[in-house]
Amino acid sequence: MPWYAVSQPTKEGAVATLAETITHITTLDRSAMDGARARQATLTKPPGSLGRLEDLSVWLAGVRGEARPRLRRPVLILAAADHGVARSGVSAYPPEVTAQMVANFLRGGAAVNVLARQMGAAVVVVDAGVAAPLPHHPDLLRRAQGPGTEDLSTGPAMSRAAALACVQTGIVLAEETIATGADVLLTGEMGIGNTTAAATITAAFTGLPAEAVTGRGTGVSDERLMHKVETVRRALALHSPDVTDAPAVLAAIGGFEIGVLAGVILGGAAARVPVVLDGFITGAAALIAVGIAPEARAFLLASHRSAESGHAAVLDALGLVPLLDLGLRLGEGSGALLALPILTAAARLLDEMATFTEAGVAGAEQPPTVGE
Amino acid sequence: MPWYAVSQPTKEGAVATLAETITHITTLDRSAMDGARARQATLTKPPGSLGRLEDLSVWLAGVRGEARPRLRRPVLILAAADHGVARSGVSAYPPEVTAQMVANFLRGGAAVNVLARQMGAAVVVVDAGVAAPLPHHPDLLRRAQGPGTEDLSTGPAMSRAAALACVQTGIVLAEETIATGADVLLTGEMGIGNTTAAATITAAFTGLPAEAVTGRGTGVSDERLMHKVETVRRALALHSPDVTDAPAVLAAIGGFEIGVLAGVILGGAAARVPVVLDGFITGAAALIAVGIAPEARAFLLASHRSAESGHAAVLDALGLVPLLDLGLRLGEGSGALLALPILTAAARLLDEMATFTEAGVAGAEQPPTVGE
Repeated sequence: MPWYAVSQPTKEGAVATLAETITHITTLDRSAMDGARARQATLTKPPGSLGRLEDLSVWLAGVRGEARPRLRRPVLILAAADHGVARSGVSAYPPEVTAQMVANFLRGGAAVNVLARQMGAAVVVVDAGVAAPLPHHPDLLRRAQGPGTEDLSTGPAMSRAAALACVQTGIVLAEETIATGADVLLTGEMGIGNTTAAATITAAFTGLPAEAVTGRGTGVSDERLMHKVETVRRALALHSPDVTDAPAVLAAIGGFEIGVLAGVILGGAAARVPVVLDGFITGAAALIAVGIAPEARAFLLASHRSAESGHAAVLDALGLVPLLDLGLRLGEGSGALLALPILTAAARLLDEMATFTEAGVAGAEQPPTVGE
Repeated sequence: MPWYAVSQPTKEGAVATLAETITHITTLDRSAMDGARARQATLTKPPGSLGRLEDLSVWLAGVRGEARPRLRRPVLILAAADHGVARSGVSAYPPEVTAQMVANFLRGGAAVNVLARQMGAAVVVVDAGVAAPLPHHPDLLRRAQGPGTEDLSTGPAMSRAAALACVQTGIVLAEETIATGADVLLTGEMGIGNTTAAATITAAFTGLPAEAVTGRGTGVSDERLMHKVETVRRALALHSPDVTDAPAVLAAIGGFEIGVLAGVILGGAAARVPVVLDGFITGAAALIAVGIAPEARAFLLASHRSAESGHAAVLDALGLVPLLDLGLRLGEGSGALLALPILTAAARLLDEMATFTEAGVAGAEQPPTVGE
């Protein structure tokens, strides 16, 4: 019997829905991909000359099950939560910054808001478990599992039931968002201390030592970085996470926002909606999601390679090649939003370009060599 | 006396304007850059966490001479021309495709049109010297220097006067475009055979051998690639280009669209408008422009690293680090348009993000470490 059939759900029906979601995650639609590839060959450009964008268009066709997919409604799900481990001084910023930044998101003053306005994306701000009181705001979705996690370096971050409830919450969020018309989900997060959780998850799934996957996060000093590495090492020794049981990993060393985003990934994949990862934290959420349902991987796009030192290992473990490499290390979904125009362009080029026949353009004198 | 004071202009005043343009190209505005840097430090994010986008915002401030620059009117100047060398079979496509693609640009069916619509950029299509008749169209600017160049592997591609006239045409185009409100110029090109000209120019400026900088262009077979390398080698031996005299290089081994785009770069730099390069051909135009006025380099942004094998050498020679690396090799300005949202985002983030004080967000407990 699989783990999810014996776990304790926090509310009735949760287990069934999670199990159901997993069974809905299948494979990319090969026939739609063939259709996209065939159309690419007819468009007025040398075959292969749009490089990665041609591959993206074919992938998107496979995700959506349509030979000429379009992306019209991008929605960023931005989950915030606090981390018990932050009290031990693993960040350059005090824990109350999590709640303060959520208020900033709701007022539209953060980087993510500027980028979302530019890229035409909606932002759904989710309280997945912020410790300090948050302002009343119509756009804030309250889905807290508690006032932040416990300190993962001294005990489990959360119960197994809470871990499953987080994932379930994310699945429902994805479903609700897609029901409003979203056809691409972007992931973002905020949580002082969450690079420590992400580093521990990365070490667990990759087998790499703590020092190889632990970075400066918000920009900690050498001294705090040493403490942070030691914290990750202690957490690994304490929990010996069993990565064949991804919810147990989430419970031991995760975060509420990480669990919610893992659920968003599963919900997106089950609904054949592409999910765009942001940086290191959303990558850790993807490790959890793919640990639960390996097929979900095919529905993920890596927007960028972050400057955070563990992120490259996450991308390797997921087998994803990022679109951008701009030295970003902010999170919030900033990298996902910056990559969105490239994904949208891939779809629009496939759909809108004229064919050689339509444009009256001569084809190649000899078959061009595709790819170099 | 500098070369441009003794050359033969094609029309009165051209030499004076080119010389004048060169004297207007100065340096980045350090005071505006300091202002941008100071504002970056106050915004609600860890210092340096927006990576390359912070650098871009500071650079843009230096180009525009404003501490909070905005980009509102992007215009792509798309220059097309034919190449005598194309008749020798260096491309996978017949030469008439240049004119056919110009017609496609004017009807809105090409990749560049799809991307320009998405990114909100205007496209100025310029006939810099297309051999076949072009359709009458109100949006086509006729600035042809002739019906394509001569074959650069058997003689000079054009006269020195024509080379200077091309550059002058580009300067005027940039000035006219900026006069309509353009605050960022993007470069694009079309011309069957022009990767052969660009490869020859690249070999001349970098000293690299023909085989190191000659790629498959539109996707030629191994056999045609060998012929193309041999063509570049023959042109280099024939002309022995003197790179201290950039107009002579343009005359011997250039193209009309390459000369026009070199002028656009000079005109943009003189007006303190950033110029976004596309791929290999526009990079060759930049080598010519920077050969004429080395200070122009500071006003250039490399949008992407192309899959065309010589492009990396061009970027190295220019000392530019590309924003994107997506395996593109189409030209037309496609890479420049794909990078535009990143440049725009850099400006908007600097201008629109809330400060720590405005947002009531706590600063760092200890000064974060900037950069890793």
